[in-house]
Amino acid sequence: MQVIQHITDLRQSIRSRRAEQPSLRVGFVPTMGFLHEGHASLLEAARRSCDIVVLSIFVNPLQFGPNEDFERYPRDEERDLAVAEQAGTDIVFLPQVAEMYPQPIKTMVSVREVTTRLCGASRPGHFDGVATVVAKLFHIVQPDAAFFGMKDAQQVAVIEQMVLDLNLPVEIVPCPTIREADGLAKSSRNVYLNEEERKQATVLSAALREAETALAESGVGLTPQQLIENVRTHIRRSPLAEIDYAEVLAFPSLEPLESFTQGERIIVALAVKFGKTRLIDNCIVRIP
Amino acid sequence: MQVIQHITDLRQSIRSRRAEQPSLRVGFVPTMGFLHEGHASLLEAARRSCDIVVLSIFVNPLQFGPNEDFERYPRDEERDLAVAEQAGTDIVFLPQVAEMYPQPIKTMVSVREVTTRLCGASRPGHFDGVATVVAKLFHIVQPDAAFFGMKDAQQVAVIEQMVLDLNLPVEIVPCPTIREADGLAKSSRNVYLNEEERKQATVLSAALREAETALAESGVGLTPQQLIENVRTHIRRSPLAEIDYAEVLAFPSLEPLESFTQGERIIVALAVKFGKTRLIDNCIVRIP
Repeated sequence: MQVIQHITDLRQSIRSRRAEQPSLRVGFVPTMGFLHEGHASLLEAARRSCDIVVLSIFVNPLQFGPNEDFERYPRDEERDLAVAEQAGTDIVFLPQVAEMYPQPIKTMVSVREVTTRLCGASRPGHFDGVATVVAKLFHIVQPDAAFFGMKDAQQVAVIEQMVLDLNLPVEIVPCPTIREADGLAKSSRNVYLNEEERKQATVLSAALREAETALAESGVGLTPQQLIENVRTHIRRSPLAEIDYAEVLAFPSLEPLESFTQGERIIVALAVKFGKTRLIDNCIVRIP
Repeated sequence: MQVIQHITDLRQSIRSRRAEQPSLRVGFVPTMGFLHEGHASLLEAARRSCDIVVLSIFVNPLQFGPNEDFERYPRDEERDLAVAEQAGTDIVFLPQVAEMYPQPIKTMVSVREVTTRLCGASRPGHFDGVATVVAKLFHIVQPDAAFFGMKDAQQVAVIEQMVLDLNLPVEIVPCPTIREADGLAKSSRNVYLNEEERKQATVLSAALREAETALAESGVGLTPQQLIENVRTHIRRSPLAEIDYAEVLAFPSLEPLESFTQGERIIVALAVKFGKTRLIDNCIVRIP
């Protein structure tokens, strides 16, 4: 496994591999590090369908708001490299901030509409930062396929919209959310939770499972408003949970819904704070 | 010479040429058509330094304001293809609007600071439309080098900033402005001018030559304000000329200047209207 810090070295490494094997399929997993089984599953998916697997680890300041956790975002380079190697990664791209932003950036990639709700509303500017750094990484790595976890469903919708609109020559592969045994979605931010918060954090996935059951039983007999009220009521039973948002929207357009239509795909999306820690989770359901 | 209308066909054509010759250097000239000797000089520059030359002809609605000349922008496909062939073009990409924008675009590429003055101020949104379509075309063609005329100096500054900020894997090659015998910069919009306007339109290049002479003689003895006042006075002698802007700025940052510094590069940039026709021209000078 090669560990590379500089853009020119990374390009050189991929270029020489492509020269040896012109049909080379390059798989790419962009991350912010502090890797968990969710990231490992993306690397393994890339491993299965590509000839080489490139992982990037970069905590991108551009996608953090001024009062967010950029400085304290958890980092563990040594463990990350072990996880990457174990999952069959060929190249780890580990740039410094000055390598990605040698001078203040003047160019931004902005995606409208799919960014107006959910985390786009709670975290202004967040998805501009995500779209811009992903565009940069795509231009640096030039992958054939890129792998993203569905825990960040809105991020997947934003990246897919960007790829479509800008004709980026890369296939986006969404991968299922990986969970703890008790249902909590794996997230680098779970380490922030204290013992009691960790216990109550299962309320997100439990509320989503309940919503899935209700939709499977009632389908179009339920309104989006009823569904989301049930979800909110469920979450409020956990005294430490503070709802940032709980919404049901069309997927992947992320537009609001007056009623359900048979066969349409919807997302139930949650962001819930436990103390200072904000967790997100979602489920995507086709209305029966 | 191949003429291609669809993105998938273009990609296929370039991919198969690259497969035959992995070291293939692809040169790209993006245009809005109605080709003149300026465009031909870009194609010839690409011809000299690249293995294949791709020309795109696309009048991009995204870069025209609601009261601008998108509908009446001059088009002559037959003559364009003759000019392209004559200049040694290998592939002409000629997409319809629906091919480039199959649904309303939600993603925009915006470049700040270099777009605040000159045409960025006169034509709000113009450079977002330019940056976005050029990013799309770069992703579609995936050229090694792209050629742009310095008549549109601010466009060159915007594209260079975008390429730098987003790590686009393409070399930008700025090429000199091509002029008529009397000095008028070649432009597709020159056909809009009536006989008297055409005569007076030489005032742009004449004022720029005078500015160059003044700078060569006086250098830092001149202030930017004095220089631009001389340029304005010169242009006002033409009764049909209506100044949209006349500015002297640092190049390529396009920031305003209080005074000149020896060795620094500056741009004198003009936009002047003759009736409904808006012409631009500029010169770039290193202060002696």
